[in-house]
Amino acid sequence: MALIVQKYGGTSVGSTERIRNVAKRIARFRREGHKLVIVVSAMTGETNRLIGLAKEIQANPDPRELDVVVSTGEQVTIGLLAMALKEEGVNARSYTGGQVRILTDSAFTKARILNIDEKKILADLDEGQVVIVAGFQGVDEEGNITTLGRGGSDTTGVALAAALCADECQIYTDVDGVYTTDPRVVPEARKLDKITFEEMLEMASLGSKVLQIRSVEFAGKYKVKLRVLSSFQEEGEGTLITVEEDISMEQPIISGIAFSRDEAKLTVLGVPDRPGIAYQILGPIADANLDVDMIIQNVGRDGTTDFSFTVNRPEFEKAKAVLEKVKEHIGAREVIGDRSICKVSAVGVGMRSHPGVASKMFRVLAEEGINILMISTSEIKISVVINEKYLELAVRILHKAFDLDQID
Amino acid sequence: MALIVQKYGGTSVGSTERIRNVAKRIARFRREGHKLVIVVSAMTGETNRLIGLAKEIQANPDPRELDVVVSTGEQVTIGLLAMALKEEGVNARSYTGGQVRILTDSAFTKARILNIDEKKILADLDEGQVVIVAGFQGVDEEGNITTLGRGGSDTTGVALAAALCADECQIYTDVDGVYTTDPRVVPEARKLDKITFEEMLEMASLGSKVLQIRSVEFAGKYKVKLRVLSSFQEEGEGTLITVEEDISMEQPIISGIAFSRDEAKLTVLGVPDRPGIAYQILGPIADANLDVDMIIQNVGRDGTTDFSFTVNRPEFEKAKAVLEKVKEHIGAREVIGDRSICKVSAVGVGMRSHPGVASKMFRVLAEEGINILMISTSEIKISVVINEKYLELAVRILHKAFDLDQID
Repeated sequence: MALIVQKYGGTSVGSTERIRNVAKRIARFRREGHKLVIVVSAMTGETNRLIGLAKEIQANPDPRELDVVVSTGEQVTIGLLAMALKEEGVNARSYTGGQVRILTDSAFTKARILNIDEKKILADLDEGQVVIVAGFQGVDEEGNITTLGRGGSDTTGVALAAALCADECQIYTDVDGVYTTDPRVVPEARKLDKITFEEMLEMASLGSKVLQIRSVEFAGKYKVKLRVLSSFQEEGEGTLITVEEDISMEQPIISGIAFSRDEAKLTVLGVPDRPGIAYQILGPIADANLDVDMIIQNVGRDGTTDFSFTVNRPEFEKAKAVLEKVKEHIGAREVIGDRSICKVSAVGVGMRSHPGVASKMFRVLAEEGINILMISTSEIKISVVINEKYLELAVRILHKAFDLDQID
Repeated sequence: MALIVQKYGGTSVGSTERIRNVAKRIARFRREGHKLVIVVSAMTGETNRLIGLAKEIQANPDPRELDVVVSTGEQVTIGLLAMALKEEGVNARSYTGGQVRILTDSAFTKARILNIDEKKILADLDEGQVVIVAGFQGVDEEGNITTLGRGGSDTTGVALAAALCADECQIYTDVDGVYTTDPRVVPEARKLDKITFEEMLEMASLGSKVLQIRSVEFAGKYKVKLRVLSSFQEEGEGTLITVEEDISMEQPIISGIAFSRDEAKLTVLGVPDRPGIAYQILGPIADANLDVDMIIQNVGRDGTTDFSFTVNRPEFEKAKAVLEKVKEHIGAREVIGDRSICKVSAVGVGMRSHPGVASKMFRVLAEEGINILMISTSEIKISVVINEKYLELAVRILHKAFDLDQID
């Protein structure tokens, strides 16, 4: 008997029929004697429908009120799933984020979880209840409804698993695990049985959409055993995301090739080259709640330098507007941008002990005539920004070059 | 400058365009300097959509979970209306029932308001905010989401007006006031400028759908000035619902003819005629949260009696099932029912000082050959249950017989 947190995404609960199927699956786990906490997303399309309504009223909806509206999506699902479980003869009780109390900061539409009150949930579990919690949402200190941003239901699941000291957090999705790369781009992509938190973090941050990045961070930080599984298949162990020690010694150098189309590049040209300039540029960007990814500052010349960074493509216009103001303020020359870029990355803890991965990656890309626009490296990943049109080609040749299509 | 609570029903906020129109109206009131608390319903059709989803899962949805699902309807509207007000340049902030804290009992799907915490609202009003509150919902002591039952948004509005000592509670709807009867049945029906709480209470309880009965009770009890207005017309004073002293001396005998189609009759035949039998029959009905309207017990014969009462038609099957059990328990002979009945009533505080209203009513119905199945009277109303097919005819002839089509 284990305490398991299961999270079901929007497609898994996309219709009342699917909700009934999820309830049947949960009922089987319950009959095995497990204590279960279930986190659910809004039914597919519901969040977009709600955002659409908001945008009919305000082009840029007020963030506090947007969270009030959007958080209803998950609230509908928790109630429906609780009913479906009762139909299966399973005791169940639903909670919104505010009811649990999942305390967050007040950054509406992208709030962070500060604390979870686990008392009600533990009491319900002891009573034999399956506890159903709305993903993606919480409340701030003042009781305002907040949401964690897109994909935040994964974070809710992992945070609950951490708060409850759960044995495992299972993320049910429409794929059966984590792959070496997207099988739609490379048909030879293989499912990984295990992957380390660090690798998964890099994969997630680089656009592998299986798990939301913050949920992996959380899981790594609190040592939550995380498993990705398909909610549409009865069998299969999925992919276990775990600490490095649990991974076999025969670690491949590269575990996967991740990519992200959703990128845009901004460059401030002719920035006065003086201390503190990076902060003067990125401070206002952070204040506008914009996430910056790669940052590059070229060596200065004639007392000025060029400063580039990438943002999520949907935030390009907002970031550009901020930079136009910054430009005036700091006396830079010009702001330019490029929205037709993408990012491709090789990820693997094995590269720590195997030098030469970067040079091999650059060589493979050069052989195909793919121009590298930006480079960024960490201990376990190498990312390049390239023109969007080369994305599929780059992923395929890197997947092959690092032998990811070989059966182990 | 007054403190006004305004309530807008589902059709008034039935689309984003209508929500924008409501926001424009509120903005005008705000510019006149009034302090405003706005209560809104779910957008038309939304509550039914949500109940439909629930019924796809459970034929009889679990009441606690149904409230979790259904309460999202109003939550969407409050967020959208707050956005629309911000677009109009008006400061606004939305609250769910739980956020305000509208404390109710735990009778899910038909909870009653116990207390309203007015602190947040008063603080917001002092700040110059328009406060928007989700109608129809609250939370119980344990923090479970509750709903007040259909039409409960009116009750929310009146209860807020009482708690805040508001100068007036304005109920915006798709009609421009309270009529002597339904104009769809009697084209000569006239709008009333004023009506007493007691009359309105009888009218509402008898099926005049303008206001929910509990809201009128509440308004009468706490002396809240209540006004019914159209949200689709710019002009018009609507109908003021007020205490009797505010009504002119020249009170007509009858103020209106109310009716209700939504009725069903149940009779327990051959009930042992002993003390406590009414409680033994109606106790289980009350325990099942079924509202009973008219109750008739015939004089006993041969040691047994027949016991009849009416319920809302949608609750007929449930009530019948309860009675079948009661029948076994008390040793009655048979349970019979009739779902094709309706109720027609003449209402007016004037009948207190004018005897003969009942006999006139019975005579008028008899002249048209309409058989009376049940009779019930109060100080200010006379109700008869008749076969549903005579409803329109009965209403028309009574409206005319009591001179309600005369201009005053």
